[in-house]
Amino acid sequence: MPKIADKYLVVDPWKVVEEGFDPGRNRVSESIFSLGNEYMGVRGYPEEGYGGDTLLGSYFNGLYEESQVAAHYKGIIKSLRFMVNAVDWLYTRITVDGETLDLAASRFSDYRREVDFRTGIYRRELTWHLRSGKSLKLAFERLVSMRNSHLGGQRITLVPVDFDGEATIRTGLDFSVLHEDQGRRYWSVLKQEEEQGIAAILGQTENTGNRLFSGFRAVSLDETGRQPVLEDGLIGYDLKLKLEQGVSAVMDKLVINVAEKDQGLDDNAVWRQGMDLAEDIRGKGYDHAAEEQQAYWQHVWETSDIEIAGDPDNQQGIRFCIFQMYQTYHGDNPGFNIGAKGLTGEAYRGLAFWDTESYCLPFYIFNNPKAAKSLLEFRYKSLPHALQRAKELDCEGAFYPIATIDGTESCDLWQHSNLQLHVGTAVAYGLRHYVTITGDTSFLHDKGVEMLIQISRFYATRGQFGQKSGEYGYFGVMGPDEFQLMVNNNCYINWMAKKLFEYTLESIQGMRDSEPEKFGLLAERIGLTDEEQADWRHKADHMKIPRDEVTGVYEEHDGFFDMPHLDIHSIPVTEFPLYSHWSYDRLYRYDMIKQPDVLMFMFLYSSQFTREEKRANYDYYEPRCIHESSLSPSIHSILAAEIGRPEEAYRFFEFATRLDLDNYNRNTREGLHTTSIAAAWMNIVYGFGGMRSDGDKLQFAPSIPEQWTHYSFPITFRGSRLTVEVTKDEAVFQLVSGEPMDIAVYGRSLTVNGSELRVPLDQVKVG
Amino acid sequence: MPKIADKYLVVDPWKVVEEGFDPGRNRVSESIFSLGNEYMGVRGYPEEGYGGDTLLGSYFNGLYEESQVAAHYKGIIKSLRFMVNAVDWLYTRITVDGETLDLAASRFSDYRREVDFRTGIYRRELTWHLRSGKSLKLAFERLVSMRNSHLGGQRITLVPVDFDGEATIRTGLDFSVLHEDQGRRYWSVLKQEEEQGIAAILGQTENTGNRLFSGFRAVSLDETGRQPVLEDGLIGYDLKLKLEQGVSAVMDKLVINVAEKDQGLDDNAVWRQGMDLAEDIRGKGYDHAAEEQQAYWQHVWETSDIEIAGDPDNQQGIRFCIFQMYQTYHGDNPGFNIGAKGLTGEAYRGLAFWDTESYCLPFYIFNNPKAAKSLLEFRYKSLPHALQRAKELDCEGAFYPIATIDGTESCDLWQHSNLQLHVGTAVAYGLRHYVTITGDTSFLHDKGVEMLIQISRFYATRGQFGQKSGEYGYFGVMGPDEFQLMVNNNCYINWMAKKLFEYTLESIQGMRDSEPEKFGLLAERIGLTDEEQADWRHKADHMKIPRDEVTGVYEEHDGFFDMPHLDIHSIPVTEFPLYSHWSYDRLYRYDMIKQPDVLMFMFLYSSQFTREEKRANYDYYEPRCIHESSLSPSIHSILAAEIGRPEEAYRFFEFATRLDLDNYNRNTREGLHTTSIAAAWMNIVYGFGGMRSDGDKLQFAPSIPEQWTHYSFPITFRGSRLTVEVTKDEAVFQLVSGEPMDIAVYGRSLTVNGSELRVPLDQVKVG
Repeated sequence: MPKIADKYLVVDPWKVVEEGFDPGRNRVSESIFSLGNEYMGVRGYPEEGYGGDTLLGSYFNGLYEESQVAAHYKGIIKSLRFMVNAVDWLYTRITVDGETLDLAASRFSDYRREVDFRTGIYRRELTWHLRSGKSLKLAFERLVSMRNSHLGGQRITLVPVDFDGEATIRTGLDFSVLHEDQGRRYWSVLKQEEEQGIAAILGQTENTGNRLFSGFRAVSLDETGRQPVLEDGLIGYDLKLKLEQGVSAVMDKLVINVAEKDQGLDDNAVWRQGMDLAEDIRGKGYDHAAEEQQAYWQHVWETSDIEIAGDPDNQQGIRFCIFQMYQTYHGDNPGFNIGAKGLTGEAYRGLAFWDTESYCLPFYIFNNPKAAKSLLEFRYKSLPHALQRAKELDCEGAFYPIATIDGTESCDLWQHSNLQLHVGTAVAYGLRHYVTITGDTSFLHDKGVEMLIQISRFYATRGQFGQKSGEYGYFGVMGPDEFQLMVNNNCYINWMAKKLFEYTLESIQGMRDSEPEKFGLLAERIGLTDEEQADWRHKADHMKIPRDEVTGVYEEHDGFFDMPHLDIHSIPVTEFPLYSHWSYDRLYRYDMIKQPDVLMFMFLYSSQFTREEKRANYDYYEPRCIHESSLSPSIHSILAAEIGRPEEAYRFFEFATRLDLDNYNRNTREGLHTTSIAAAWMNIVYGFGGMRSDGDKLQFAPSIPEQWTHYSFPITFRGSRLTVEVTKDEAVFQLVSGEPMDIAVYGRSLTVNGSELRVPLDQVKVG
Repeated sequence: MPKIADKYLVVDPWKVVEEGFDPGRNRVSESIFSLGNEYMGVRGYPEEGYGGDTLLGSYFNGLYEESQVAAHYKGIIKSLRFMVNAVDWLYTRITVDGETLDLAASRFSDYRREVDFRTGIYRRELTWHLRSGKSLKLAFERLVSMRNSHLGGQRITLVPVDFDGEATIRTGLDFSVLHEDQGRRYWSVLKQEEEQGIAAILGQTENTGNRLFSGFRAVSLDETGRQPVLEDGLIGYDLKLKLEQGVSAVMDKLVINVAEKDQGLDDNAVWRQGMDLAEDIRGKGYDHAAEEQQAYWQHVWETSDIEIAGDPDNQQGIRFCIFQMYQTYHGDNPGFNIGAKGLTGEAYRGLAFWDTESYCLPFYIFNNPKAAKSLLEFRYKSLPHALQRAKELDCEGAFYPIATIDGTESCDLWQHSNLQLHVGTAVAYGLRHYVTITGDTSFLHDKGVEMLIQISRFYATRGQFGQKSGEYGYFGVMGPDEFQLMVNNNCYINWMAKKLFEYTLESIQGMRDSEPEKFGLLAERIGLTDEEQADWRHKADHMKIPRDEVTGVYEEHDGFFDMPHLDIHSIPVTEFPLYSHWSYDRLYRYDMIKQPDVLMFMFLYSSQFTREEKRANYDYYEPRCIHESSLSPSIHSILAAEIGRPEEAYRFFEFATRLDLDNYNRNTREGLHTTSIAAAWMNIVYGFGGMRSDGDKLQFAPSIPEQWTHYSFPITFRGSRLTVEVTKDEAVFQLVSGEPMDIAVYGRSLTVNGSELRVPLDQVKVG
């Protein structure tokens, strides 16, 4: 795993700071300095226009365009949907003495930018040296409001160093944006107009007819005049600002963006709705929005902060991760999901994968259960699509898409979208995890059981009994390990399906017992029969879980142990990533794996395996794993910590929190690794904190990396909040709010209440 | 296998005859009435223009266009080439009394058409009832010359039934043809001009720059005037013909078409070359061309006819097959291959598959060795492409494409083009077969050994040793059975690779012994080492050939015996073809197979297996075979005959010779099943004739279907020609020309010379 940090940004416990401008790193920084509020996101692009390499990205969660796919066969998708680049609501051009600022052409110095996790505000400063010989200090602030999902703010401050004069700021809303991945512009403008000081524009996507209203107000105390600007795709003003040497001239811009996917509303109604929401920016100013923003983030850090002492890099890194998690998703807007790159780039097309339930959900379950519930709501809302997709695949029940923006399948590689079954069981696992930790059985009974039944129906019709083995399993599948493309009886899929059936039956039983009437209505509505329940029981009981009895190693799939061996360390560094350097078919014929598969279910169902079993499987699979998924090292780190390999655990952890800050994979330019950011949180809490949450109560087995002096993290469990602080000698558990909580530490049952519960650190025997 | 004949055409031993016009069957008839001469082909479309459903197809062997493919990964092709629809050189419009003939709109009667296998001439007749109340008899003849590959001829005869008058015939060459599959026109015209009575046009394809010259001369003794016609894409004349009641007015048109793929030649040179070749149509007339054509076909039937007595349908069918084999390919033009649909339609895009070596080559080896050699020359000529393709796949040596028109890979389904390895071994097998039967070791030494070495290099770098088994084989492959998409150790591939290595080493030894100097030069040129030869020996000796020791059944691939069982007879008829009715991924998770795989290599290497072994494997695989390839039933028929199941053999044979004549698969509209036509020949000679040709001498084990009274076929072997005649009681072998020949009949060695060798029929014990 030759991952090397590209150290560039300033290390700071509460900020990301960039000093100086590096055009070659501009796209990377644009990703890192992205702002978002789950509803919308903007990359950290230079809003004043930039002639160099930039990805001007402005995204709205779930707002998609569509392109056609050349489909050859039944069950292979015919179109794919992707998050479309949308209005540039930060559009700015600054002209002084006839010269327009462009960092690719202008002379400038003292470039610095930062985003402060405590305020949520992005600030960029520079001194512009005009061709006329004059100098002008500039500061650009922006925010994407966490209080009002529709609201964005921008403040531009100009301070002439050595002259009096005038600046022209063109400020506006621009729909003529390029969707780079497709090389096309997708927006047409339905209306652009000013109404009582609010300049607004209504755009529509070409193929999907999605509409986006954007309206703004620009104010300045230093304004000496303004001209309306109405161009193709653009509405705005040219503002004249008086410049006085040494004095700040300020322009504030507040924007309301409203995305509308409902085709039933007519254009006027969409416009009206936008204008009504835009009323909010009439009375309040930028400062108000900034204060609200700061208050929001203060609350976040009070409830979710992780402290790491003795390791400034990782301290910054984990706070960056938590900051991004909230920016990407926090559950205020139901019906959204989390794209693999969040709202920070076009890569992965804004699509959500099983990562949501497998990697992101734990963070929300333990920090923000409302958000966790909202994510599960997305799957319930998209159940009709999943039912339809199962039909297309000649199966019953619900098949959740491997990649989606709206619930429909949008992965155009049939080998993934038709063969990867593991989203359904991830949803079921996530649901079980959510219900266990929050105790929210009403969600389980309102929506969860229905999902479980439909998912089980799929798994009961997609699988088959082996002719020779007589055991049940899945043929022609790809598991989480994407380096084994089409196999039979992938152990992860089989294991998870077995657990799915069992949990479904258990949940049915629980609901039947506790809410018989509600259950009766559900069973009737979806035609649940005793026969199918018996069938699920039978299939769960006869599920093939291939395992070598002598070594205790689970076989990733039928025949995996005979796959030709490859010493992965013999692969030249220049051949990574293998997807780019190897012939596609060559990836799939070794015992080399891309990411944890057997180890993944051993982590998810940790309590069902002994430490020795984990060690045996870790020792078999870890040397075969190439980690060509950014989600991979964290799981290995967590398991390494458990089996007593602290150095290995730390080595795998190293880049988890700083994957993007240090651009380890050299592709942060495309956007942030949002779901891997969630894995970094897991890496600390499950890894060093040794938490396990697959049983009835929380388990902890804390350890501390040699490099750290202490660290702490909070956990919310059934409404109670606990902090865990780990020093070199002990772990301290304390209840912050709520009822006392039963936990287990190093396997011993304990109760945490108001007083500090101190447990000396235990050393796991090195395996 | 629910295949039902659609009986429509008249049964005749020497012709295809259609009586009456059925617009719903027009495309089917267009395919069946295709003419070709390996260089060019035309479908039997109504050349006078037709407003109904028609596929106006005019094709030139190896003349291709190209389209781009959205390729995601290395090793996956980025463009594909396809045989492009080309000039309509039969272009005709007939106008009388202001009415233009169009079978979709005009009134007509007495429609009849036929193609006569003895003359190679196509003739269509009808009586046209004009709106003016007059009637006119029309006859359209056409030929595609077997003597002069560039030459096409057309004769139109008009006989007024009840009037004197005048007809206008617009005759020309039209490049404004649609390539239906892509919905586009690909030709632009570089030049169109008349030179001394020859009207000519030079077209060029859009993406590939291929050029096609077409020039024609139209003559009529009844001409009263002509006007040149020069339109976009079209050159021609409006000819006025005098019509006299009861008297034939005749127009003859001779056309010279010259395809030019060499980009080095300038347009003038291509034009000049075409005009020079067109000199040929200045002196000679249609009658001359028709006489030459008849002479050619007479010779064909003297050397290649198969007689079947007592079964008029199959008599017609097999002659139709032989006629098509010669039309598609006869070896006058080196560098061509055989498309899956020949030159009769756009389906399969004019591409050649392993069918050429596996199914077509035997017909040519035993009837027309020059053509067989030419087909192998195609593979030698395209060796550079195969070397390049192997590199793209991270392997050494030569990888022959699964589908090609010019030697480059043109299958845009990566799962086929990257995982199906069996073209290389088919080429090697075909080479071995050709050399054994013809004794042409000079071809082997000039070109064959080099191909064998390069193919072996590929197979030695693509394969791997199993980690557990320690045996060599191929991982991540698709065998000939396309219903097992990506498997390990496909038994056919492994078996054929083992034989490849062995034959390569044997051929190297033979060449080294007999032509040491020539061998030395070759070895040096391509860097042959002793180490690699030792490696091939080692891999051949350790090749995994999975087989159940108890039953003797070969396992199609690792784990096949555990594949879930499906009773294929339980599949509703409405679900065929499965490719259209089943979700794509569902096809691949049963023990159901699409076509013979294990049985295929048992047929190819017949002498290496006992009849009992064949029976055991037939009994296992036949009930699992869905025959969703038209090539499948013939192999089953051949094996059924061998293991003593004459009725089953006949049942599988039934539709072989008449697959297209009776439109069994309901897709003849797309073009003829050219390579399956070759399998029909094998079905008779190898099936009922019981011939086997994989050993040193020919083996025969003749039988006769109950429905036949006798049948006979000729065989050419090392320059000698033999006829085999089989009656109810005996088989009669007779040498027609050449040296006496050692054969084996029912396992007994015999010599055939000038006198008749009579052997009583033996009954194979029913298994």
